[in-house]
Amino acid sequence: MRAADRPRSVCVGMAQLQVIDQQTANRQQIESAITELADQGAHLIVLPELHDHRYFCQTADPTLFDLAETVPGPTTDRFCELSAKLGVVIVGSVFEDRGSGLFHNTAFVTDGDRGLVGRYRKMHIPEDPGYYEKYYFTPGDMGFTPIDTSIGRLGLLVCWDQWFPEAARLMSLAGAEVLIYPTAIGWDFTDDDQTQARQRDAWITIQRSHAIANGVPVISVNRVGHEVDPSGHTPGQTFWGSSMVVSADGYLDMQYGIDSQQHGIHVLDLEHSRQIRRIWPFQRDRRVDAYADLLKKGIP
Amino acid sequence: MRAADRPRSVCVGMAQLQVIDQQTANRQQIESAITELADQGAHLIVLPELHDHRYFCQTADPTLFDLAETVPGPTTDRFCELSAKLGVVIVGSVFEDRGSGLFHNTAFVTDGDRGLVGRYRKMHIPEDPGYYEKYYFTPGDMGFTPIDTSIGRLGLLVCWDQWFPEAARLMSLAGAEVLIYPTAIGWDFTDDDQTQARQRDAWITIQRSHAIANGVPVISVNRVGHEVDPSGHTPGQTFWGSSMVVSADGYLDMQYGIDSQQHGIHVLDLEHSRQIRRIWPFQRDRRVDAYADLLKKGIP
Repeated sequence: MRAADRPRSVCVGMAQLQVIDQQTANRQQIESAITELADQGAHLIVLPELHDHRYFCQTADPTLFDLAETVPGPTTDRFCELSAKLGVVIVGSVFEDRGSGLFHNTAFVTDGDRGLVGRYRKMHIPEDPGYYEKYYFTPGDMGFTPIDTSIGRLGLLVCWDQWFPEAARLMSLAGAEVLIYPTAIGWDFTDDDQTQARQRDAWITIQRSHAIANGVPVISVNRVGHEVDPSGHTPGQTFWGSSMVVSADGYLDMQYGIDSQQHGIHVLDLEHSRQIRRIWPFQRDRRVDAYADLLKKGIP
Repeated sequence: MRAADRPRSVCVGMAQLQVIDQQTANRQQIESAITELADQGAHLIVLPELHDHRYFCQTADPTLFDLAETVPGPTTDRFCELSAKLGVVIVGSVFEDRGSGLFHNTAFVTDGDRGLVGRYRKMHIPEDPGYYEKYYFTPGDMGFTPIDTSIGRLGLLVCWDQWFPEAARLMSLAGAEVLIYPTAIGWDFTDDDQTQARQRDAWITIQRSHAIANGVPVISVNRVGHEVDPSGHTPGQTFWGSSMVVSADGYLDMQYGIDSQQHGIHVLDLEHSRQIRRIWPFQRDRRVDAYADLLKKGIP
């Protein structure tokens, strides 16, 4: 679709969900949230990372690879149906079984009648106590490529990618009109209150910085609520919600609460980027002649 | 100096100054601020960008190249003397005449008896209405190399560099233990109050994000106060102060006011970076195999 044909205001629906550890009920609540957001006028609906399952990466357990599925597969098929029925663009997330022993943490987009229009395989994979993602997920090998949809060019990234300015830069250089992060992040119980508050604040701040550095809006949708660790090794994870919409100048335009499910609509002005990028023409001045060492792990 | 020999707590003195358009008085106030900060126990003293002159880039005027000087030269000599007399490290800023028709916006470091220990030539040069820096300054050609001092490895960057995550990343990958930004940034009078507030907030946010992404503290020292535009082309510039110290986790540890001169002391714990980088080991996960397009201006 040519840029001039697209609506320049996009009605964004964010579904901040607490995952229910019972598949049918969980799928029902996802479908209800999507339907309700579409009814409210959403053009674009974003769900949290790996929304179909409790956060299974709390433990490294070989039986949990059974949760993976192909793309296209059952979850993307369900979302294609919903997308077509409701006439909306949906950003979902799935534990992808690629075959050949490869598994990815994959975000995907379904777009009305067009069905599955693209996927993004999480490039930066964390590995922290209680977040054993390197065990499950092969780092993505599709790079940072935006996905064209009927409402614009979407820059899908996933959770841990949030901490890397490189990811946001590459997506926006490649033409992403909005950066979208499905996430699953929470507090560590062993940290004191002040540390927890500082960590959440850092998470908000770095995502706002991606908007500022690149002159694009950012949408980030997180899980919320406590999930037990079935292995009993950890006290479980409490996801901090705080899903947000950030303007192209980094302004925190809307933010959800930290402790409950929430979904709602927010109007995003995609024209704002054009204005911001004229006021702050950073892209003009990047010193690509002096950035070679960005391709190194360390210097020296 | 070996890392183990260095003090790990550094007492930082920031001098947020309003430049006086009378050379002798301006130099006197700079010297007073430095002396006072040293008396208060500062190990490291940071001044705003181009502190020896009003912000001459408000207009493009060939006679103003007369303000430039060599490095080493009169200003670095003055600072070497002060540094040696007071036993402190000083980060200063100068309009550098390099010869051969080359001029730079240069930050430098003097270190006690060691004298001038290094310089950084501003790499990203702005050009905005009222900020005609591309007229005066050749973009730096020394890259992003930290400067070793008796108190640690300093990552000097200058003002507009603040908006580029690449600069902060390269300095910290190269071993900078703290990022230091002498700056001169202010409000545009044609913007409304809300826009002005959002711009200042974006400026704070992006610098905090450099701390977060890299696990290093950030010191930013700005000018303050109104400076007239002698050409009468613009209503002048009002610099917004707001000099700050940011912890390695992005926490805004100290911030000055927006409308008055201020100088003071802040204890910076350089050990904190080690701790933060273990909790958030982002550097481990950079996808240098997939960052090649960062060396391009645009994609495609």
